[in-house]
Amino acid sequence: MNRRCPKCIHPSSGQKLYNPADISQDVSVSSIQQKEDKLEISWNDNHHSTFPLSWLRDHCYSKKNLIAKTDPKLKTWKNGLKIPTLPFEEVMNTPEGLREWLDELYTVGLVKITGCSVAPGTVERLARRISHPRETMYGTIFDVVSIPDAMNIAYTSTALDPHMDLLYYEAPPGLQFLHCLVSEAKGGLSTFMDAFQCADIMRTESPDLFNVITRVPTTYHKQGKDHSLSLQKTIVEVNDNGHIVGVNYSPQFGGVISVPEEEVLDYYRAVSAFTEITRRKEMELSFHLKPGEIITFNNRRVLHGRTSFDANSGGRHLQGIYVDLDEFYSKYRTFHRRETK
Amino acid sequence: MNRRCPKCIHPSSGQKLYNPADISQDVSVSSIQQKEDKLEISWNDNHHSTFPLSWLRDHCYSKKNLIAKTDPKLKTWKNGLKIPTLPFEEVMNTPEGLREWLDELYTVGLVKITGCSVAPGTVERLARRISHPRETMYGTIFDVVSIPDAMNIAYTSTALDPHMDLLYYEAPPGLQFLHCLVSEAKGGLSTFMDAFQCADIMRTESPDLFNVITRVPTTYHKQGKDHSLSLQKTIVEVNDNGHIVGVNYSPQFGGVISVPEEEVLDYYRAVSAFTEITRRKEMELSFHLKPGEIITFNNRRVLHGRTSFDANSGGRHLQGIYVDLDEFYSKYRTFHRRETK
Repeated sequence: MNRRCPKCIHPSSGQKLYNPADISQDVSVSSIQQKEDKLEISWNDNHHSTFPLSWLRDHCYSKKNLIAKTDPKLKTWKNGLKIPTLPFEEVMNTPEGLREWLDELYTVGLVKITGCSVAPGTVERLARRISHPRETMYGTIFDVVSIPDAMNIAYTSTALDPHMDLLYYEAPPGLQFLHCLVSEAKGGLSTFMDAFQCADIMRTESPDLFNVITRVPTTYHKQGKDHSLSLQKTIVEVNDNGHIVGVNYSPQFGGVISVPEEEVLDYYRAVSAFTEITRRKEMELSFHLKPGEIITFNNRRVLHGRTSFDANSGGRHLQGIYVDLDEFYSKYRTFHRRETK
Repeated sequence: MNRRCPKCIHPSSGQKLYNPADISQDVSVSSIQQKEDKLEISWNDNHHSTFPLSWLRDHCYSKKNLIAKTDPKLKTWKNGLKIPTLPFEEVMNTPEGLREWLDELYTVGLVKITGCSVAPGTVERLARRISHPRETMYGTIFDVVSIPDAMNIAYTSTALDPHMDLLYYEAPPGLQFLHCLVSEAKGGLSTFMDAFQCADIMRTESPDLFNVITRVPTTYHKQGKDHSLSLQKTIVEVNDNGHIVGVNYSPQFGGVISVPEEEVLDYYRAVSAFTEITRRKEMELSFHLKPGEIITFNNRRVLHGRTSFDANSGGRHLQGIYVDLDEFYSKYRTFHRRETK
């Protein structure tokens, strides 16, 4: 029960000072009156609540309201997308630049930042404009260069099919930033794709198989000398109201599935159907990321990859960093809340 | 499809070099033979697999095997628990000490480490024995002391009812470490409780209400000047095989629920029933954490709290830190894998 009663909330932290379980289930209204745009209620346990009428409307339990609230309101895209592009200085130094970056990251999920220095560590400065970075088994800043005996094929010159990073973590990184420092090698185009768009197409084309990959989990794992991570997740997540709210797609890290025998064949048919959509040319954006550019994207929505490159033809060096989705949404909401005040 | 075919796996990273979607759904066996404890299969697409028989048994799709694999095999407890206790030096400097700590954290979820220095930062040294710490909006190391205008009631002298930390994050911290540096104030006993045990009792006593809190989500939120986090989670999570695999309980951070109208009353009845169990005296362990002790526990399973203390009667200073559950499980599994080799 939300009381909005001044004596029930700690003033500086905003935390509840009561447990809803302690409110009698027989609590009733002693008096109620509307004062302008507020409703004032006195309860028979000597507490008092003041609800703005708009607050009551926002939190209405009606089905229509619940559905509207869980619609993420995204702009899905194919390879015709004109990538939203912003200058580094504007994003770093102006509230308008930050706001536009946050908005495009939220609705489109892919934003290019130009005019950056090629100094190592620049990518962390940009990340901290939103929040502290997320440290993973690959460290905080990771260097994408071709090295021998790599712990990840990202650190070779091999092509990388479209994928998301670190799905073997419970909460895979939300935002990913890739900063180009050197790009002299032949090949190595960056590729991006809207996985929510892929899922949406699959729902239209193959509703039965779509249902399978929202229900039968795949396994993502990372096994190494010092690591052993393994988790089950469905490739597509749909909320109770039918909105696509998550995609988990990273075939390179697929582990042994652990599903009932009668689901196995349908599972593989469904994964193949999704993969086929990710290979359609019209789904994929590809371009040459140039030194001084940072591509920023939502790793939980946008697949990324690269074409192979010739490591003998010149250097190629990217620096990457992650920020958690929680911190991104928090920044996005805080910014919008301030604006509407 | 898991091929275990040498030409399909990258040697140093262990990543798949093929996409299962590229294996024909008409693939068939050309030849098959058992060689000692292995099964060798040649496929009609010129790939070859070698499966140890034990591997095939471990990954069998039978219902019995799937159920056994998802049983977390925990030792639940009440206030009769003798808290597993280990010396700091043993945990830091011997593989046996580390192994015992990891094992007790996994099965019991609560371990006291004694004989620590009272130097600030000691808690991070201990955390790094498992993994890098998790940074949150409260920083990396957080100081639990009574201060004015606190951003969290933990930083006052108020009693804290049993709760978990940071449930408004998508993946709340797994391990929590609290290091006592100073304990001179009157009061301020530390309290702990096995939330999986509480959930298990509720399932036996009130199966219908138990079903409600595994199905109807609560809202956890943290709103502040620079933060706006809000997520929906069920208080108890049960897997497809009926094992309790998660509890999310932190009434101080309960936000406005967003559930269908017809579920509202049942939801509050169910939360009250769970809360009533958390208040039974036999569920709660309480003790005075002494300077030089670090209590380590699974924040996703064990509720923690404290009694109020008199901030005028003397100092009280704890330092805390978190480690993600992914990293803990990874360390635990890596350790056990090495041992069985």
